[in-house]
Amino acid sequence: MTAVAQFSSRAAEPAPAFDIWMRHVQAEMETALEQFLPAAASIPTKLHQAMRYAVLDGGKRVRPLLVFAAGELFAAPAGSVQRAAAAVEMIHAYSLVHDDMPCMDDDALRRGKPTVHVQYDQATALLVGDALQAQAFIVLAEAGEVGKGVDAARQIVMLRLLAQASGSLGMCGGQAIDLASVGLNLSLAELEQMHKLKTGALLRASVLLGAWAGKTLAQNEIQALEAYGAAIGLAFQVVDDILDATADSATLGKTAGKDAADNKPTYVSILGLSESQALAEKLRNDAHQALAIFGDRARRLRELADLIVQRKA
Amino acid sequence: MTAVAQFSSRAAEPAPAFDIWMRHVQAEMETALEQFLPAAASIPTKLHQAMRYAVLDGGKRVRPLLVFAAGELFAAPAGSVQRAAAAVEMIHAYSLVHDDMPCMDDDALRRGKPTVHVQYDQATALLVGDALQAQAFIVLAEAGEVGKGVDAARQIVMLRLLAQASGSLGMCGGQAIDLASVGLNLSLAELEQMHKLKTGALLRASVLLGAWAGKTLAQNEIQALEAYGAAIGLAFQVVDDILDATADSATLGKTAGKDAADNKPTYVSILGLSESQALAEKLRNDAHQALAIFGDRARRLRELADLIVQRKA
Repeated sequence: MTAVAQFSSRAAEPAPAFDIWMRHVQAEMETALEQFLPAAASIPTKLHQAMRYAVLDGGKRVRPLLVFAAGELFAAPAGSVQRAAAAVEMIHAYSLVHDDMPCMDDDALRRGKPTVHVQYDQATALLVGDALQAQAFIVLAEAGEVGKGVDAARQIVMLRLLAQASGSLGMCGGQAIDLASVGLNLSLAELEQMHKLKTGALLRASVLLGAWAGKTLAQNEIQALEAYGAAIGLAFQVVDDILDATADSATLGKTAGKDAADNKPTYVSILGLSESQALAEKLRNDAHQALAIFGDRARRLRELADLIVQRKA
Repeated sequence: MTAVAQFSSRAAEPAPAFDIWMRHVQAEMETALEQFLPAAASIPTKLHQAMRYAVLDGGKRVRPLLVFAAGELFAAPAGSVQRAAAAVEMIHAYSLVHDDMPCMDDDALRRGKPTVHVQYDQATALLVGDALQAQAFIVLAEAGEVGKGVDAARQIVMLRLLAQASGSLGMCGGQAIDLASVGLNLSLAELEQMHKLKTGALLRASVLLGAWAGKTLAQNEIQALEAYGAAIGLAFQVVDDILDATADSATLGKTAGKDAADNKPTYVSILGLSESQALAEKLRNDAHQALAIFGDRARRLRELADLIVQRKA
């Protein structure tokens, strides 16, 4: 039995502690991603092995956790939640592969492992990213098959949300603004706009996809979830900047201090450390308040806001 | 009034000559692509300008022509055909941008213009490709909005077909096999398998998307269209290899003789020129025969098979 079904259908039992729920979802995601990626033995094998290398066994799965937590709000079917979460995570993984390439951030370490272009080669890294983006849409476009629980109209909303969050007015656009900002003195508003697209768009989409997997959302529900997603999206980046300035590479699983070395504007460089920490706290409160209309069903989303602000890596 | 509506709803009038139809579709596509790409003035402007540079004002639009021709089979609504055609062309354009990058084919000329990474920079070219892929799914996921004519279930089939044709078991997979084949002595069967994915998958998808935009296809219709698509897909590549060996760069709008210089296996290098020409003719006949069940409604698809085999660039 999968996490969503288990935790949503037995209201009489007490919900498990957050860390147990989280590990359960992470394990379930690993299995789902295994299944939703092409087999390593299928041709072209090098590409498929590299795709699996880029996605499996890595990361905290923050976006899948958000999809699952939002799915619990409306008792979304487990299969639909898994597919939505896997699709979002594939988009995230592809963006990391491309961002790490020499023509972008030129990073050699990711999630404690050599980056894809280091482990394989640049051409393979390029194709891995391209194919993972397509795979995300394959996985999500299959979610609505008969008996899998999401009606076709909602499935199209989910596909559209994922595509918009990924594209030039979402994640790719944020990355373009980030590239253009190196060495510039961004204002706080400009920095916020960049992160709203670069990392925020996909985090917001994760929340909405999980919820849409459960039911057709009302306007006030969309607004509440977007307010929550905006707050945790920004908090995620503020904390990322704090960690980049304060943690070491071994803890982060990627090169620490890189933003400062690359002369990239960060919350810490603009606001200073203690104001950045205060901002993260404020955003956590904003996220909690946005969830008020959902009552206790939003417990996991609240706990995830706490996790995002309190994480150490 | 758009091409599909015009040419499908007035059975009493004689159909226009092929070249008039083709120019009409090409002009309509340019307008549609203009509309379906983010505005050049919207932020991030450099990314959006580069996306438009990569897509607009270039190419023969073979894939859109196939979508339109297949749409005519079943009198598909003009808006749905335009969106499907634009989506397929965006996938094609993104693949060219990435294929031209230094870590892949390292080509400086495309459609008679400097390639994107030459005109802009590598990081922008990478993002342009990524964002165009997302944009293709945005455009296709919006096709089914109320009043636009494609029901949601068919729209999901179309999204799935496009994603599969683009991914690691389609176009990206073919590109990976192509990369791995440089300097190897491929058999004819291996060469065919590579092209079936690299260029064939998206050409086949173009035919199917146009048809699905019109109605839910019966199994024998799918089979006929897949047989047609397989034949023209292979013919397209055979003719590409013939042209690469016989035409000059100015005619092609890209660097001629590159496959031989790169030591890449081609139909001409394996079969020789005259046998390659005979194969292209045979494939044209196969394509025509596959269309038999559709009678005269398949006229444009037949004419496109002729165009693909007889083209000079």
